[in-house]
Amino acid sequence: MTAAEPLFDRVALIGLGLIGSSLARAIRREGLAGTLVAGDASPEVCARVLELGIADEADTDLAVVARDADLVVVCTPVGACGAVAERIAPSLKAGAIVSDVGSIKAAVVEKMAPHLPAGVHLVPGHPVAGTEKSGPDAGFADLFPGRWCILTPPEGTDEAAVAKVAELWRRVGMILEFMTPDHHDKVLAITSHLPHLIAYTIVGTASELEDHLSREVIKFSAGGFRDFTRIAASDPVMWRDVFLNNKEAVLEVLQRFTEDLTAMQRAIRYGEGDTLEAMFTKTRAIRKSVIDAKQA
Amino acid sequence: MTAAEPLFDRVALIGLGLIGSSLARAIRREGLAGTLVAGDASPEVCARVLELGIADEADTDLAVVARDADLVVVCTPVGACGAVAERIAPSLKAGAIVSDVGSIKAAVVEKMAPHLPAGVHLVPGHPVAGTEKSGPDAGFADLFPGRWCILTPPEGTDEAAVAKVAELWRRVGMILEFMTPDHHDKVLAITSHLPHLIAYTIVGTASELEDHLSREVIKFSAGGFRDFTRIAASDPVMWRDVFLNNKEAVLEVLQRFTEDLTAMQRAIRYGEGDTLEAMFTKTRAIRKSVIDAKQA
Repeated sequence: MTAAEPLFDRVALIGLGLIGSSLARAIRREGLAGTLVAGDASPEVCARVLELGIADEADTDLAVVARDADLVVVCTPVGACGAVAERIAPSLKAGAIVSDVGSIKAAVVEKMAPHLPAGVHLVPGHPVAGTEKSGPDAGFADLFPGRWCILTPPEGTDEAAVAKVAELWRRVGMILEFMTPDHHDKVLAITSHLPHLIAYTIVGTASELEDHLSREVIKFSAGGFRDFTRIAASDPVMWRDVFLNNKEAVLEVLQRFTEDLTAMQRAIRYGEGDTLEAMFTKTRAIRKSVIDAKQA
Repeated sequence: MTAAEPLFDRVALIGLGLIGSSLARAIRREGLAGTLVAGDASPEVCARVLELGIADEADTDLAVVARDADLVVVCTPVGACGAVAERIAPSLKAGAIVSDVGSIKAAVVEKMAPHLPAGVHLVPGHPVAGTEKSGPDAGFADLFPGRWCILTPPEGTDEAAVAKVAELWRRVGMILEFMTPDHHDKVLAITSHLPHLIAYTIVGTASELEDHLSREVIKFSAGGFRDFTRIAASDPVMWRDVFLNNKEAVLEVLQRFTEDLTAMQRAIRYGEGDTLEAMFTKTRAIRKSVIDAKQA
């Protein structure tokens, strides 16, 4: 295949939020689909997608959207992916590829796979990219370049199908990585799920302060707090679903975090300056690694 | 006074790290000092300050630096401010103003005030601005504009001295606010100290993971973790001193945070989606307030 030819004849994207609408824009820009169809449960979102001109067709009926598609990418919150799979299954053609962009993978495979007919290839994926914004207006094609996309195909998945999904993400600028779903969920529990939980919690704690103090917290948020408010502005339903569906891994890493926080608390209470300084010095090296890995 | 006339004849800055060197640059740019003198315990920093051309003189002998100064601003980590006050006290002229930029204020007043001779005015301050970088090369004059500067003069402080310090910060672009030291420390414990403690802790937790997992955490840090690594790259000595000197307020707010985190943990364990979604929705309003307050 050449760059001039679309990678897929017909691509259906389901759920046109931040990721779905960014992917639509990137697919358009790179000419990766002959026809690009958008499906979303919300009629307002469908109308907006057409207004924005980021898909050729848009429909709230997901069975219609998936019909004849060579590739269906489910971009809904993870909690909806089972129902979506069930809804689209009857219209999927033989040889169709179904993928997704969910932040957890074991639960996604578990919920989607049982609904999909034989001859349809499930290639779950996770583009590790995002902002705190939501909705079809928040998307942009440049969300992906330079970021990682993790694919977690179950053992025995059709290799050609995996290669085509990988090629799609490569063409929108991502770097590919392959993992088992369980390993993915463990890594993301620490790099993404725990940070979001912590940010939501600290912003919640601040919101419970007495009124006058709460107003001052906003006023003087430049001292560090504002970075947490950004993360804590992420989509509530998406994140609810992440925590409900990656319970074990999140609870395990949260337990480690709580132990470490208790050690910090103890060092503060007993005025152990050396312990604190050593902890605060060690973390600088990690920042350097993140910068060196071009993920800063 | 007009903008063409310097606000102070002779200004001494002690500690030329991120804040001190940013202030030096801003004072220069705005023409606020007839002569600007830099003092730093490190000969390397003094040499670098002269190379950068951000002060007229630089010396490791703080008594020399403070001599004849109309204003001395102590920009060292908070733990050093008592010793600095003791060192400069004998050379301070009558009517001199001493200020600082420390992230905590009650402990600063407590440590500095006893050393200062009668007739010298102590006007403690805190420009709420910063980055995760350290050292004289990291500073820049545009660090301050649009950010808050909190002054916490003890009751009975000379009003003209307070007004002159306020004017200095206003001229480098900051918005002024006045508080008692205790109230300042309570507000900053939540907006700045707790966020830093949490960020240091979570990055520390990640660094304790098995080696292969730790490498993957860096690779996939774009999912939220990298924002914490930035905060956790802040100066270790400065932050050690903050936690040692604002113990009560930090422990109090940390206790609230821990309770809230435990509630989140429980909601995850028992799959209480509604509780999680409600928490995650509430925090969005705070982000909106931060943006509306132009602190995003």
